[in-house]
Amino acid sequence: MSMQALLGPRSIAVIGASDNKARIGGVPVDLLKRARFERLYPVNPKNETIQGLKAYPDIESVPEKVDLVIIALSADATLPMLERCHALGIPSALVYASGYAETNEPEGNARQDALMAFARSSGMRIAGPNCMGNANFTDAIFTSFGQSFQPGEPAGHTALLTQSGNMCATVFRMARRAGVTFSHVINTGNEACVDFSDYLDYLAADSATQAAVCYIEELRDGAKFLAVAARFRAAGKMLAVYKVGASEKGAEATRSHTAALAGDSAAYDAAFARAGVVRAGELSGLADLAYLHTLGDKIGGSNCAVLSISGAAGAILADALALGGGDVPTLPPHVQQGLSAQIPGHSMVSNPVDLTGNIVNSNDFLSECIRLASEPDDIDVVLLYLPGNFLTQALDQVEKAAAASSKAFIVIDTFAMADRERLAAHGIGYFDDFDRCARAICAYGAWKKNDEIPMPPGAPSAAWPEIAADRMALSETESKDALVAFGVPVVHDAVVQTADEVRAVASKIGFPLVAKLVSPDVAHKTEHGLIRLGLKNEAETLEAFETIMAKAASMNVRIEGVTLEPNLSGGVEILAGATHDPVFGWMLTVGLGGIWTELMKDACNALLPIDAAGAEAMLRSLKGFKLLDGYRGAPKADVKAAAQAIAALGDAVMAGGERLREVEINPLLVMPEGQGAVAVDALVLLNAKTGTEEKELA
Amino acid sequence: MSMQALLGPRSIAVIGASDNKARIGGVPVDLLKRARFERLYPVNPKNETIQGLKAYPDIESVPEKVDLVIIALSADATLPMLERCHALGIPSALVYASGYAETNEPEGNARQDALMAFARSSGMRIAGPNCMGNANFTDAIFTSFGQSFQPGEPAGHTALLTQSGNMCATVFRMARRAGVTFSHVINTGNEACVDFSDYLDYLAADSATQAAVCYIEELRDGAKFLAVAARFRAAGKMLAVYKVGASEKGAEATRSHTAALAGDSAAYDAAFARAGVVRAGELSGLADLAYLHTLGDKIGGSNCAVLSISGAAGAILADALALGGGDVPTLPPHVQQGLSAQIPGHSMVSNPVDLTGNIVNSNDFLSECIRLASEPDDIDVVLLYLPGNFLTQALDQVEKAAAASSKAFIVIDTFAMADRERLAAHGIGYFDDFDRCARAICAYGAWKKNDEIPMPPGAPSAAWPEIAADRMALSETESKDALVAFGVPVVHDAVVQTADEVRAVASKIGFPLVAKLVSPDVAHKTEHGLIRLGLKNEAETLEAFETIMAKAASMNVRIEGVTLEPNLSGGVEILAGATHDPVFGWMLTVGLGGIWTELMKDACNALLPIDAAGAEAMLRSLKGFKLLDGYRGAPKADVKAAAQAIAALGDAVMAGGERLREVEINPLLVMPEGQGAVAVDALVLLNAKTGTEEKELA
Repeated sequence: MSMQALLGPRSIAVIGASDNKARIGGVPVDLLKRARFERLYPVNPKNETIQGLKAYPDIESVPEKVDLVIIALSADATLPMLERCHALGIPSALVYASGYAETNEPEGNARQDALMAFARSSGMRIAGPNCMGNANFTDAIFTSFGQSFQPGEPAGHTALLTQSGNMCATVFRMARRAGVTFSHVINTGNEACVDFSDYLDYLAADSATQAAVCYIEELRDGAKFLAVAARFRAAGKMLAVYKVGASEKGAEATRSHTAALAGDSAAYDAAFARAGVVRAGELSGLADLAYLHTLGDKIGGSNCAVLSISGAAGAILADALALGGGDVPTLPPHVQQGLSAQIPGHSMVSNPVDLTGNIVNSNDFLSECIRLASEPDDIDVVLLYLPGNFLTQALDQVEKAAAASSKAFIVIDTFAMADRERLAAHGIGYFDDFDRCARAICAYGAWKKNDEIPMPPGAPSAAWPEIAADRMALSETESKDALVAFGVPVVHDAVVQTADEVRAVASKIGFPLVAKLVSPDVAHKTEHGLIRLGLKNEAETLEAFETIMAKAASMNVRIEGVTLEPNLSGGVEILAGATHDPVFGWMLTVGLGGIWTELMKDACNALLPIDAAGAEAMLRSLKGFKLLDGYRGAPKADVKAAAQAIAALGDAVMAGGERLREVEINPLLVMPEGQGAVAVDALVLLNAKTGTEEKELA
Repeated sequence: MSMQALLGPRSIAVIGASDNKARIGGVPVDLLKRARFERLYPVNPKNETIQGLKAYPDIESVPEKVDLVIIALSADATLPMLERCHALGIPSALVYASGYAETNEPEGNARQDALMAFARSSGMRIAGPNCMGNANFTDAIFTSFGQSFQPGEPAGHTALLTQSGNMCATVFRMARRAGVTFSHVINTGNEACVDFSDYLDYLAADSATQAAVCYIEELRDGAKFLAVAARFRAAGKMLAVYKVGASEKGAEATRSHTAALAGDSAAYDAAFARAGVVRAGELSGLADLAYLHTLGDKIGGSNCAVLSISGAAGAILADALALGGGDVPTLPPHVQQGLSAQIPGHSMVSNPVDLTGNIVNSNDFLSECIRLASEPDDIDVVLLYLPGNFLTQALDQVEKAAAASSKAFIVIDTFAMADRERLAAHGIGYFDDFDRCARAICAYGAWKKNDEIPMPPGAPSAAWPEIAADRMALSETESKDALVAFGVPVVHDAVVQTADEVRAVASKIGFPLVAKLVSPDVAHKTEHGLIRLGLKNEAETLEAFETIMAKAASMNVRIEGVTLEPNLSGGVEILAGATHDPVFGWMLTVGLGGIWTELMKDACNALLPIDAAGAEAMLRSLKGFKLLDGYRGAPKADVKAAAQAIAALGDAVMAGGERLREVEINPLLVMPEGQGAVAVDALVLLNAKTGTEEKELA
């Protein structure tokens, strides 16, 4: 309700309104006047009129309780004014002033804290501070002091949200050039009281908005973002994001710039993948994705039939699509035969299709070629390279073919001579650059094809044991015992000191067994006969225990006992660990062995919770997955069991809550198929326990 | 000399000239007339005049022996006409006709073969066939039937060479939009007689040409290209290439399109790296690189000081530069202090520098900030984000700062409102896109910083042994013996059958030794005591030999002898192999172990020859290099010895010539520092020996 007052107000007061149309307090008055916004009240004690409108000396004199006040005052004057507005019952405000947390100074931070406290206590919806304001093109309401968004621009179905005023204007211009029209343009500023997801939440329900494209530096509340992203997805609306900070320097610059929480770049990747967000790899990609979405529902994926008057362009597009994750599927033989019959000479017809320059000579040639190439079920997009005059000559045929087809049509003209509006009127897409086109199709097509990873039920299957308040880590044995409760198979081991203990423990662990002396005094246990492998039954184990104890006694070393553990052979080592991201919470990392993950960066991340199917998908996405899949004649590893163990780890981590700092199984030994997977070692690191966290661990 | 006649003719006849300015035979007459080219002779038996010029009924009637004939005839009529031109002593020709090898048909292939045979026998320089012709802007000579290159365009210092007419026009337009001017634009067509490197060779010596940007599908003669690239490099001229075919589909499309030899994409990468060619990852990158090169010598690398009125833009640029291999070096403390004193508030000053919107308020603020940030020695480029009106307001200060600095200046205005010509006049670069700008700076800067890999002297250090004509491979022992001659350290092993042989062989191999029974009948040698490790001297070796032989005799199995080999422990396994690329010749591949290279693609390629320094650089470029560098407390491996062994392998391969098909050492065991590296296994595959190759192997 109060987001409606902020983004779709029926009445607005501008406090600090200026008669000068170029000044911060003058721009919104000018824009709203020109947009014929009627219930507009400039407030300025020094003027009788502002830009021809009656000016009010103070907000109390304004003759109605407006939906929104725009506060164009200094930072110091802003909070007292908000208090007065709240006293009048005004539900929402937009604060232009800077001088808050973005300064990274104590004074600015204190101002922002005070603003947030006021917003919480008052319930007022306060946008900004340090924001440029917004444009609501649907209702022609302009609350920005920037000049980029002008009344008279056509309204559309794309929303643009950015955490930077400049990038807002930049993306808006790029997208407008491509013909994209907007419902809302929102510049979120410091997000002290209304955050990014609050705006998205409004837009998810806004009937005019079919897509949102976002420039994001940092999110504060990952769970809130994931929830609203799910609403976008459920509504079939596209949510596309360009996230800056992929490099260390970029992340550093971002943190300094926004003073926001530093989420891990990998956690953002995992979150966007989980939430079904379309990623733009470059800022210009936001404009391109917004543009593709306006082409409507025809784009079902990123498999393209590429038809080109230039063999070179066909090859360039095939490269760009393949490198971006799209495809140029080989056309079926009958389609190739049909194309060969149309195209003179022995041109390439398998896809990409080289039309040759022949299209200038024949009227029906092109539409027939397009019809043939667009037919196969695995073609999502018909991508045509027709530069300059070729397109001019072929446009009738392209329009005819597009009208007759259920597939999406996109034309590339690197000479940038195309009649964009005529193409748009026929629902045909247009790009003038190979690589931007291919990148957009690949990202958009992947989004269309993406099936959400199913979330497992949230209730934990077990509980963590009591952990003493001063503990900062659990021992290996404690860690394993805790994980076992959630269904993680572990290598049981135990230290035994007597023959009775050997009998009690050995059968629990199972045979074959390994027995090892536990002593701080012996370095080379194998050479001293203090390790015995392959103990097949209780009798052998007892014999080995006695022998080791006797040998150790003869060496006159300290004896803490003998460890019994299963004698595992074969199997592939993987690791699975969970770390806590400040923005998105628990993130699971899965990789192959230590070296593989550490040196080769062959690891995969996903947000928790995750089920076994999700865990298996993670394993299969590793470059080194072949090592689990019967590499060089080795038996296939028990991937299902490994996935179940990883999902159980995730379950345990989610149940552990805030007391946990990090949980790792390394290695998780994945045995041959049918033989399971076991955690050989496990580590649980803890956060210091504070009074408020008492409830976290049962 | 005859390339001069082709590219800079003083007189031209157009055979098949047309009175219609839009037809293939009419365009060059029109263009040359408009360019006031005087010694122009249209040839057409049907017309008295062509476009107002006297027409000649045949080439024999043309009153002078022209430098160049443009043949605008059908494919069938072309060769007879070339013969007549040659009879008149005309040195060069340009053939527009298609219908040659590009058709992939026997008839077309035969035509091209005949054309090539004629060119060889006559010595005539024949460009094309299936080419669009060229434009020489330096001398205003237009031999193209395309309309993209018009008289009156300003001449410049960039040459554009493409293997596709359409890409030629596309890149030309993109680069002209950026203000790039050209010396030559060359469309090479089928390159039947004059190939890509022939044109480059001319341009390397052309005083008007300072850079060449190239669209390449396939090269035929790798060695020729490498030689001419070296000439470009020696002259300080930039050679930039966009090579299509990086993906399988793209490569397939290219092969079908050009019917050229299929070189391996990895071989192109290795060749371009060796030759110091600047790679453009996208077609638009060619235009951007040409543009950067026109900024002159100021760009010394890709380390940027980023100054931005928007923190967001600074972060975006830092990301894009870091991901492209450039850098945004942290500014020294005194520079940061100086910047902090200039910029109000606690803005980011470490680099990227957030100027804030304050630049609109102060006159000298910006030039002082630029001066400070540009000073450090490790800054190559001053990169300014100043969109729209910010740039308009700041332009005087930017110009002042640029004039006072030795560093390159590049401005980004994403609003695309910049006065490009005014910036160009001050030598200041300009882009309207973050990512294109960053990609271009990274590629160009890397080229400027690149030191060529030194080539070792060409003379081989040894010779290969006689190899029987019917051999298709060498045995492991033969392979090792061959490589040893070139200095590759190998694990010597030998099969011995008598105690005397043990004595003779053991000291040659060195201790400790391993002894193993050689028998086709025993599978589990260890379990039968038929392998003995760690034999420290002759006596132990003799004893082991006798024991193994006796044991084998008692088992009643076939005995072929006992293998003696060194008992190696520790060390890291790498592989080094050479394969022969049809275009670029011998390519060396170096990687870590089998799995690393096979699954992780962690391998590095380079063209041969290579010296030890080059081989070491390859090893150091591997992601897994840390395994050789004392990973997790292991001793550092003898990288120098490994590099020497690899260089020796390269030496052997180069000396082996065409008889060799593939040579691989796998594994090359790299021992701890000071202990060398040895080839444990080696494999030499051979090509069938033909009569003409008799000379290849001594």
